[in-house]
Amino acid sequence: MKLVINRQSKVPLAQQIHQAIADRILSGHLERGARLPSVRQLAKMLQVSPVTVVHALDLLEAEGLITRVHGKGTFVYEEHAKTDQTTERQKTFPVVDYLYRSQYWQYQKSEVPIDFAQSVVHPSLLPTQALADSIRRLIREEPDVLVQYGEIQGDLALRQALARYISGERITASAHEILVTNGSQQAIDLVARSFVGPQDVVVTEEPTYTAAIDAFRSRGATVLSVPVDEHGMRIDELTGLLDRCTPKLIYTIPSFHNPTGSVMSVKRRRELIDIASEVNCLVLEDDPWSEIHFDEPPPPHLKSMDETGNVIYIKGLGKILSPGCRIGFLIATGPVLERLVAAKTNADLGNPLLNQRVILPLFENGSIRESLRRLRETLRERRNLTLRVLERHAPDGVTWKIPKGGFNVWVSLPEGANANELMAEAEKVGIRFLPGSACDPNQIQWRHLRISFSPTTEADLEQGLTTLCHVMERYLSLLVNKKGKSPLF
Amino acid sequence: MKLVINRQSKVPLAQQIHQAIADRILSGHLERGARLPSVRQLAKMLQVSPVTVVHALDLLEAEGLITRVHGKGTFVYEEHAKTDQTTERQKTFPVVDYLYRSQYWQYQKSEVPIDFAQSVVHPSLLPTQALADSIRRLIREEPDVLVQYGEIQGDLALRQALARYISGERITASAHEILVTNGSQQAIDLVARSFVGPQDVVVTEEPTYTAAIDAFRSRGATVLSVPVDEHGMRIDELTGLLDRCTPKLIYTIPSFHNPTGSVMSVKRRRELIDIASEVNCLVLEDDPWSEIHFDEPPPPHLKSMDETGNVIYIKGLGKILSPGCRIGFLIATGPVLERLVAAKTNADLGNPLLNQRVILPLFENGSIRESLRRLRETLRERRNLTLRVLERHAPDGVTWKIPKGGFNVWVSLPEGANANELMAEAEKVGIRFLPGSACDPNQIQWRHLRISFSPTTEADLEQGLTTLCHVMERYLSLLVNKKGKSPLF
Repeated sequence: MKLVINRQSKVPLAQQIHQAIADRILSGHLERGARLPSVRQLAKMLQVSPVTVVHALDLLEAEGLITRVHGKGTFVYEEHAKTDQTTERQKTFPVVDYLYRSQYWQYQKSEVPIDFAQSVVHPSLLPTQALADSIRRLIREEPDVLVQYGEIQGDLALRQALARYISGERITASAHEILVTNGSQQAIDLVARSFVGPQDVVVTEEPTYTAAIDAFRSRGATVLSVPVDEHGMRIDELTGLLDRCTPKLIYTIPSFHNPTGSVMSVKRRRELIDIASEVNCLVLEDDPWSEIHFDEPPPPHLKSMDETGNVIYIKGLGKILSPGCRIGFLIATGPVLERLVAAKTNADLGNPLLNQRVILPLFENGSIRESLRRLRETLRERRNLTLRVLERHAPDGVTWKIPKGGFNVWVSLPEGANANELMAEAEKVGIRFLPGSACDPNQIQWRHLRISFSPTTEADLEQGLTTLCHVMERYLSLLVNKKGKSPLF
Repeated sequence: MKLVINRQSKVPLAQQIHQAIADRILSGHLERGARLPSVRQLAKMLQVSPVTVVHALDLLEAEGLITRVHGKGTFVYEEHAKTDQTTERQKTFPVVDYLYRSQYWQYQKSEVPIDFAQSVVHPSLLPTQALADSIRRLIREEPDVLVQYGEIQGDLALRQALARYISGERITASAHEILVTNGSQQAIDLVARSFVGPQDVVVTEEPTYTAAIDAFRSRGATVLSVPVDEHGMRIDELTGLLDRCTPKLIYTIPSFHNPTGSVMSVKRRRELIDIASEVNCLVLEDDPWSEIHFDEPPPPHLKSMDETGNVIYIKGLGKILSPGCRIGFLIATGPVLERLVAAKTNADLGNPLLNQRVILPLFENGSIRESLRRLRETLRERRNLTLRVLERHAPDGVTWKIPKGGFNVWVSLPEGANANELMAEAEKVGIRFLPGSACDPNQIQWRHLRISFSPTTEADLEQGLTTLCHVMERYLSLLVNKKGKSPLF
């Protein structure tokens, strides 16, 4: 176990140690029942006082992540890890690793009948026919794409088509400023590995996208967060935070924020751009689904306002076009782009050519726009259905935000409730959602949950969500009876 | 510019600083003509004595990588970087990055008529027809693969087929021990990011695969190397090195070593396995083309001898089956595998499903074996042609190793010659090869070059190689006339 703490950070050491150990437990890197090093060992390893370690362990114990057994030691709580079939020899394999956090995959490990946890689109809503036609033509006319490598930066024809597409989104970028990636996750990860390290601070929204937290924390960075309200990231809170530290990077999902669905106002977008330029930090603008707007399009992208090259724009096409091809891209300029292309080279030498050529015609003939229009309309109906079911069946005290776009609705349970406990109950009836704690760098959004209305059939959405409301009702009524219960794991 | 040095390392500090700056220059991260920080600034930044910095700069100057201008400062040598179109504002973008080395892409940036630099296979030698048939059937029967995500660890059906395939290679692995990656490069990179960090030592062969050096050095590791002879990695040299340090990982290409083509003997394989188990370090066994043997199959894979879980086996299928699908995989067990799956999640959430299903039938119906048999026979003829041309046209003093498998021949120029200078001459007539310096962690293999006989047509191989021999002859005769010239850049 290698824990990284940052003495330059304004985050108290005990809190950093707590976070580092919690990361490992919740990522499954520390086995259930595993024994932690002693207070003295941890203090020595981290070069902090034993009092600091004890304080960190107190926090972990309060969350139920560890148990202390008098005279025996401190152990990872038994319910927090997976069953394990490896041998004892393998379990104790004494190789230090550098992966500090990877929680996202814990939510992907098994299948449930009705899965509202993943922000993906039900296959029936995607342009299967157009993609199939494209691939048939491609194999007939250019079968050699199967046996040729593409360019590391991405197929030039596709980059040209993406540049044209994105100009329709008011971003001016040449094909040479585009890097094709293996989904948006790789784009986030390339930025993290190129520009984020153990001494750095990354600012995210709170809550935010789970796998982005994983990517930044895996680099050993300190992740600080700024709350989101209905107009997006709270810039007043951001400036307050900037008095205490200078971030290397600010990660934001300004349009139909994941998971809350809110939209950053034009004013705040301008302020964010100005701040980034002033303190000279990078802004990573993640745009998973700005095309999926239910009332009106969101304000201009941050990248379209960027005059200094501070903004890196990323977009995944898996969710909205073809998960089977899994293509994303980023836009950056100058040395920032060069570093990212070099990082892509080290990471995998480039995306497969086949997939890039499969989606190309949809951009060249513009059918992507029509496909997105249909997706938008269907998801608007899904959003409305979701709101209707919640209004009708959600128990008292449960609230939600009305998303103006995107794939998700962010639901809040009453004070004292815990979405992780609710999830355990929901899984018993074959339903899953994403607990809010997964979306929070500090794992404190215990009473919130994200429900995606895109991945299931419409019938499953209606039926599953109704059932989930009943599970909520039962869970909350039991909670009232067990008064005084800690709202933790 | 952020330079990382390792005070625990046995490598002298001056040499580490030299290496760190050389990496950045040769990777193109330091612009031509860029001014380096002053001796005093570097000494302060790195917390070393100015004498140490001066020694490092002496080494860089001797190699022609920097020039010192009296009263003005130290500058990156003008011929070592690309033309650049970014603005001054962007050039000086003051964001520290963490990518210490990525040289491989420097050799991929432009196209030449005859490219012997890339160990890829000419499209005509790959099973285009079988792949095209597979994709047509797939799209007819399961069009939904275009609009579905696969498992993060890789499509289960493919992993099962790969487990069966690899059992034919005498490696026993279940589908659950296989992780599908975006080519073998991603497999190397996932291992590097999971287990290698700035305080670690990685041992490679010398010479070795360029992009592997990039991946390890990008993690800030100290890369030490062990020479290779006709029986593979010199285990006596390895044990000598182990007296001085304990590596975290040993990276090896035991079968038809890249770039020299040598084969590690059974005895040395056993010794390596025993050593890794004793000092408890990981062994990364890269197997790009063990199926392409010209005389006899290589000895059993290291992974097949591994009883402790120390060995991670990786295999790319791009080179030998379908570059357009770019699929690779790795085999590992227990917590090592778990870390790698988590790293894959953070890296990109999994390979595209489409490509995995395209190659699946070739493994299921066994036609991959037949395809590899044909490739082996063609490449044996190519190897023989290469040797014939070299014997007939290579100038006196030029030598080469006879490869027993794989895609490359390793050629050595006489003492005093420099393969980088030769490459500049060859590029004038539209021919490229890989200079040996790219394959060496210490960039000292100046007089060697790797010629791949797989990427061109047979006619281009014969004609291009003949021309290259004439270029060599002219270059070497000029060199004799310019006696006393430094054999450096």
